[in-house]
Amino acid sequence: MNEISLKLNADDLILQALREDMPGEDVSTNAVMPEACAGTVDLIAKEDGIVAGLDVFARVFMLLDAETRIEFFCKDGDAVRKGQKLAVVNGDIRVLLSGERVALNYLQRMSGIATYTHEMAALLAGTGITLLDTRKTSPNNRVFEKYAVRVGGGANHRTGLSDGVLLKDNHIGAAGGVARAVQMARAYAPFVRKIEVETETLDQVKEAVEAGADIIMLDNMSDVDMKKAVELIGGRAKTECSGNVTRENIARLADIGVDYVSSGALTHSAPILDLSMKYLRPVSREVES
Amino acid sequence: MNEISLKLNADDLILQALREDMPGEDVSTNAVMPEACAGTVDLIAKEDGIVAGLDVFARVFMLLDAETRIEFFCKDGDAVRKGQKLAVVNGDIRVLLSGERVALNYLQRMSGIATYTHEMAALLAGTGITLLDTRKTSPNNRVFEKYAVRVGGGANHRTGLSDGVLLKDNHIGAAGGVARAVQMARAYAPFVRKIEVETETLDQVKEAVEAGADIIMLDNMSDVDMKKAVELIGGRAKTECSGNVTRENIARLADIGVDYVSSGALTHSAPILDLSMKYLRPVSREVES
Amino acid sequence: MNEISLKLNADDLILQALREDMPGEDVSTNAVMPEACAGTVDLIAKEDGIVAGLDVFARVFMLLDAETRIEFFCKDGDAVRKGQKLAVVNGDIRVLLSGERVALNYLQRMSGIATYTHEMAALLAGTGITLLDTRKTSPNNRVFEKYAVRVGGGANHRTGLSDGVLLKDNHIGAAGGVARAVQMARAYAPFVRKIEVETETLDQVKEAVEAGADIIMLDNMSDVDMKKAVELIGGRAKTECSGNVTRENIARLADIGVDYVSSGALTHSAPILDLSMKYLRPVSREVES
Amino acid sequence: MNEISLKLNADDLILQALREDMPGEDVSTNAVMPEACAGTVDLIAKEDGIVAGLDVFARVFMLLDAETRIEFFCKDGDAVRKGQKLAVVNGDIRVLLSGERVALNYLQRMSGIATYTHEMAALLAGTGITLLDTRKTSPNNRVFEKYAVRVGGGANHRTGLSDGVLLKDNHIGAAGGVARAVQMARAYAPFVRKIEVETETLDQVKEAVEAGADIIMLDNMSDVDMKKAVELIGGRAKTECSGNVTRENIARLADIGVDYVSSGALTHSAPILDLSMKYLRPVSREVES
Amino acid sequence: MNEISLKLNADDLILQALREDMPGEDVSTNAVMPEACAGTVDLIAKEDGIVAGLDVFARVFMLLDAETRIEFFCKDGDAVRKGQKLAVVNGDIRVLLSGERVALNYLQRMSGIATYTHEMAALLAGTGITLLDTRKTSPNNRVFEKYAVRVGGGANHRTGLSDGVLLKDNHIGAAGGVARAVQMARAYAPFVRKIEVETETLDQVKEAVEAGADIIMLDNMSDVDMKKAVELIGGRAKTECSGNVTRENIARLADIGVDYVSSGALTHSAPILDLSMKYLRPVSREVES
Amino acid sequence: MNEISLKLNADDLILQALREDMPGEDVSTNAVMPEACAGTVDLIAKEDGIVAGLDVFARVFMLLDAETRIEFFCKDGDAVRKGQKLAVVNGDIRVLLSGERVALNYLQRMSGIATYTHEMAALLAGTGITLLDTRKTSPNNRVFEKYAVRVGGGANHRTGLSDGVLLKDNHIGAAGGVARAVQMARAYAPFVRKIEVETETLDQVKEAVEAGADIIMLDNMSDVDMKKAVELIGGRAKTECSGNVTRENIARLADIGVDYVSSGALTHSAPILDLSMKYLRPVSREVES
Repeated sequence: MNEISLKLNADDLILQALREDMPGEDVSTNAVMPEACAGTVDLIAKEDGIVAGLDVFARVFMLLDAETRIEFFCKDGDAVRKGQKLAVVNGDIRVLLSGERVALNYLQRMSGIATYTHEMAALLAGTGITLLDTRKTSPNNRVFEKYAVRVGGGANHRTGLSDGVLLKDNHIGAAGGVARAVQMARAYAPFVRKIEVETETLDQVKEAVEAGADIIMLDNMSDVDMKKAVELIGGRAKTECSGNVTRENIARLADIGVDYVSSGALTHSAPILDLSMKYLRPVSREVES
Repeated sequence: MNEISLKLNADDLILQALREDMPGEDVSTNAVMPEACAGTVDLIAKEDGIVAGLDVFARVFMLLDAETRIEFFCKDGDAVRKGQKLAVVNGDIRVLLSGERVALNYLQRMSGIATYTHEMAALLAGTGITLLDTRKTSPNNRVFEKYAVRVGGGANHRTGLSDGVLLKDNHIGAAGGVARAVQMARAYAPFVRKIEVETETLDQVKEAVEAGADIIMLDNMSDVDMKKAVELIGGRAKTECSGNVTRENIARLADIGVDYVSSGALTHSAPILDLSMKYLRPVSREVES
Repeated sequence: MNEISLKLNADDLILQALREDMPGEDVSTNAVMPEACAGTVDLIAKEDGIVAGLDVFARVFMLLDAETRIEFFCKDGDAVRKGQKLAVVNGDIRVLLSGERVALNYLQRMSGIATYTHEMAALLAGTGITLLDTRKTSPNNRVFEKYAVRVGGGANHRTGLSDGVLLKDNHIGAAGGVARAVQMARAYAPFVRKIEVETETLDQVKEAVEAGADIIMLDNMSDVDMKKAVELIGGRAKTECSGNVTRENIARLADIGVDYVSSGALTHSAPILDLSMKYLRPVSREVES
Repeated sequence: MNEISLKLNADDLILQALREDMPGEDVSTNAVMPEACAGTVDLIAKEDGIVAGLDVFARVFMLLDAETRIEFFCKDGDAVRKGQKLAVVNGDIRVLLSGERVALNYLQRMSGIATYTHEMAALLAGTGITLLDTRKTSPNNRVFEKYAVRVGGGANHRTGLSDGVLLKDNHIGAAGGVARAVQMARAYAPFVRKIEVETETLDQVKEAVEAGADIIMLDNMSDVDMKKAVELIGGRAKTECSGNVTRENIARLADIGVDYVSSGALTHSAPILDLSMKYLRPVSREVES
Repeated sequence: MNEISLKLNADDLILQALREDMPGEDVSTNAVMPEACAGTVDLIAKEDGIVAGLDVFARVFMLLDAETRIEFFCKDGDAVRKGQKLAVVNGDIRVLLSGERVALNYLQRMSGIATYTHEMAALLAGTGITLLDTRKTSPNNRVFEKYAVRVGGGANHRTGLSDGVLLKDNHIGAAGGVARAVQMARAYAPFVRKIEVETETLDQVKEAVEAGADIIMLDNMSDVDMKKAVELIGGRAKTECSGNVTRENIARLADIGVDYVSSGALTHSAPILDLSMKYLRPVSREVES
Repeated sequence: MNEISLKLNADDLILQALREDMPGEDVSTNAVMPEACAGTVDLIAKEDGIVAGLDVFARVFMLLDAETRIEFFCKDGDAVRKGQKLAVVNGDIRVLLSGERVALNYLQRMSGIATYTHEMAALLAGTGITLLDTRKTSPNNRVFEKYAVRVGGGANHRTGLSDGVLLKDNHIGAAGGVARAVQMARAYAPFVRKIEVETETLDQVKEAVEAGADIIMLDNMSDVDMKKAVELIGGRAKTECSGNVTRENIARLADIGVDYVSSGALTHSAPILDLSMKYLRPVSREVES
């Protein structure tokens, strides 16, 4: 993650997570280690996958103690293997112990999402289809999870309700029709917004394309209907296939011709990637020249 | 969740999640609905499971508009079936649309955890073993996830590093032995803390019980060793089995005699429970007498 | 402003402004009025203009005391005349006195922007050109100022660096050319983003349109060049004229054929609209039935 | 601005402004510059004026990246000329691009206020009259704007409702007379507060001076009445002229003999001073010895 | 305390104190009371004193549950006797239990300060001397403690470093003399500030009064010197006696002629007033008509 | 205090205290010292006692200016004598002046608590009884005050309502008996919690010990009854004596046989330890090589 974004948008969340885990202090550690003590610990992969979130992992320790030094042997997006040493963290052992859980909670989840996304994206390789995430993220973790999707080879849909227009049936109903809804959205929203319309039938697709929608979501349509929709749209709008997309059935979408496929599962169903911090050992601080 | 805890400890997190999704405004909704418009929407289960987090779900809408009214047809801990209507939400349609995603993100995750926990706990039914969670929760969601574990029939381990003492090998090494570590922890920690010691060998178990540990964690031990450990401890401390506990292998623990089994999977691997808000329809506000 | 957006995105700013003015208490008022005392005060226009921000004005008092009642005789976007009574505020006189300055600071600035925007937009009436704001807003007041631009008849450009892509010469230089920059932006940014490219010469315009930019900004170009640019683009992208647009010279743009004209002056140079709260008088609280 | 005040009272506001502009990330910059890249950019005056806020300008970049280096060729309060190079900013180009708008938004406004104040103060030169600001500042920008007034040669009135006592007709009415209001304020307010009384007639002036007011505000009085008021007060209190003071009519106040003149226009009507960041160019980082 | 000040300046502190005591939840209460249960509890004085902070006491419970009802049988400033019932609190028993400690922590401390101040002020009765507090307050409790001083019959010195000027020897040294320091302070500080100068010798007093100080602090002077100082000043400035003022020796100041006596002990040494909440009993909620 | 805890849990409180004292700026200092000026000041004990909070004292200055250098001549827990020089603080004189009051407010209170605790603990020396604090701390100062108790030789009771279970008569009443209350608490609370039961009679003690309470509080019991209670419990639970424990009567507890004695007075009645910063003098900055 970009250093500036980390500072402005991630640091406060990470600190909040540290305070969630340590509203007071790390009683166990502080009881037995009244003084700082230099040490080193390894970050090890316990299963195969794609790693994501190394900067966040490092940041957890840096926020506890800016003197901590982390050496990475891989970078975000790398495929790692079970048993592989990913990093070495050097610093005050109290920092290593107090920060371990939060650092791993971030890294395991982000790597889990990247791994899952990578698998899904691989199934679309060569089709020209882009895999998208959704807003179905863990509350107050969106910035991390959307980043992990990118690392895994997916792309991001809008980040929230404010930076994208997606007109659903209720919006269309309130506006009094697709054309009117698109028109109202264009007039109201910042002019840099694309207008996406959610459709469930071919009639709605037709209306949407005629209303000038920039993107048309084909929601829970049959493959046959999707093909017809793509044909009907004829390149006048981008197309997004949404609903019931899983590892099992995603391959069938290759021939349908949609531009994008979105999947909530990327963020709400990806299991974590198992990682651990091992072999913590004291070190004698080297003499500084 | 207790109303007081919600106010003190959950409201700020929920508002933060709402702002994460709406740093500005809900452009789509505001474009087509300049004025408030009364409506109603159903909350429907899309698969079977245990529901958890209904208060949080309701709170999302209440924080957007205190006039919203939610009627529930089930309560936390209930087993719900696919297709079942769980609740009806009445209020300004703009509120229903703007709050939907965040409300579902909470409820689906919490219900997923409750469902998963319920399944795991069922496998331990009749054994006298209590199923425990861990600190492997989504950052800044611990209060919700630990609550969901309880709803699902599990119990909570410590909530963080500040309210429980767990001495691991590094703590023991720093202290210079188990006995010394337990003694230091008793002297340092608030006197209401129980002292738990993590052990990997029978020798360590022996040392821990002799040092007066209140709880002894048997970490990644073989079933045979765990049985020996339980025998060796002889009721002088509570015992917690930890490591590699899954739905597949948990049943084997029934005969070993440990008091507690902890599982990180409860919070880091539970898939969401699929729920959706459907049938949003405008209603004419009833005349108030 | 939408009630939900006010709650999520404006209330904290308004409270912060109140605390900026009252880090302790309103010493003058509290010295002489130890008890609540019902009163009423009028909001009066001291010059002609377009009013904007009435909800914010009301919110200031509501946040100090939810019992305050405000009756408006106009609505956002209305043209008001010098001497016109715009509202009556009823409540605890201490609230009226303590909130007055902050309420007016918001309302006067927002109305000033709406008035100025309205004048600029009037000069473009009938041309089909949309008047846009910029990011040249008062720090921590963007949500209010961008709203005021809309009330005045303008439209909003992106709200910040995160919800719109605008590639300037430095971005293009870093990418190694317009085509490459547009391609990188499409790959990186959420797929709902439009890509805008800033150009200063016709060559750059040509490159941008060929690279598939959604919007092309013509920055500080001569009228002659802008006409050529519009012709060259031929409807393949939207066009935005930027730079040195003032009340004095905006009319000349009518014939050039651009879609949008953006002006920083809307928010950084609009003088306030003079308003005041007058005729504060105590009232005997009416008997509640 | 004093470094300590910046840290305690400005940094949070500046960070908030940065987050207002970048709730997520700078998409344009991050799309094309995945890695840090050293660069340099000039700060140029685009018109003549008094510069104010250089520390704030620098702070914006420092808060994004503490490694940024800013070299100034002028200092707050200096008169600068169109075309003059005011500073060079060195750092990661991504920081220069992402921070530019917020840095300029602060500096342009503060310099605009300093310039306007300087012009007004010049018209009072030699009269012994001190020019004062008011509380009519942009919400959540008071600390910056009041500082800019001082830089421009004005002085500050109270910073808010808590650190000064100003008794208006409503306070006096509630207290039951000027003498009683002054007495109540002296008894209630911290004893270091001066007591100011707002007057509109000579009778009120007489009452105020007899009540022992420290400062008497002559609000919207005619020149003739103000002269009489000053005479009547005879040095027993300081005098402040308020209301309708503009660049056009301020000179007439020279002979009236008041001590202070306050003007809301200093902060609510000062146009910005046009400044820009230009000539951004990559540099090869120098070798560190 | 004024309701508006409570909202703007105290609520956040009270909520913070509640979260300090309940970072998670009230485990004891929630374990045994899963549902709301109406109850009533009495507030009893356990010793004689002056009560202060009843609004804060009530606010603690209101912030936990706005439905709580508190009936007071006394008001701030009243002398209460051991055994006296001061209030009855009605509400959800869980709220009464969870809020009790924080409510009492505030009320006991504030009442302790009011009681101590009242005793000190009584010793000055009839002398015309005003008793002042200092900035020696508990961190993050100043607003409560300064209020309690007023309730007890004292007056407030400045609330902090920003709303009062107090020139000590180091300031004077830096400025290059008293006269210069006073002059610099007048030029720099908001014009509503009084200028106070700290003096330790009669020479310094002379300099200060000639420099036009508004207030002269006589710091740790002998009674003889203070009398000389008061004479020397001759009413040209207010005088404040500071240093070593205790209950034991305050009476001696009566004849010296100073206007103010300040005492850090009011806030840093006042013992709490012992109060308790007793006789908690469930009540059947009355039928609402 | 542990550096990590300071960062996570104390820095925000310290900054808040600094802003409480300086909502704007240090007007006196800034008026006379426009530029940084290196200086040095001594920290001197003005009476005998135990010092606690040196890290917090230092942190105040470090948070204002990370360049400040503090040299300590003692450490937390040391007995210091009147007149002893405890530390020298080197830095920008403006920082020394602006931070002095807040730094001393923390250090004096913490040292006062440590001193008082030390005296109380000395009276229990050799008895095997541990002296405990309570939750009767200054709002938003608990982390500092509980630390000071430890420095003084006491131990900490639970830090709040969330990390310890203490069942009082109302809890027991709500549960329907001691046995049921203990059972409910064990089922509900995190399993690492000890269960403490408050008792006032020997019957209650009997019930509590039979219910399996981990700790039994003997609340306001006579010495005779306490002895009987200890005998009755017979080591099956820890015992805590609470109520009316003062320096005058604490010695009598030595023979009763309780494990713990808790005293609210440690935090709510300890007078401050008088300390001051003296001999501030400018220094010429040494040349940096």
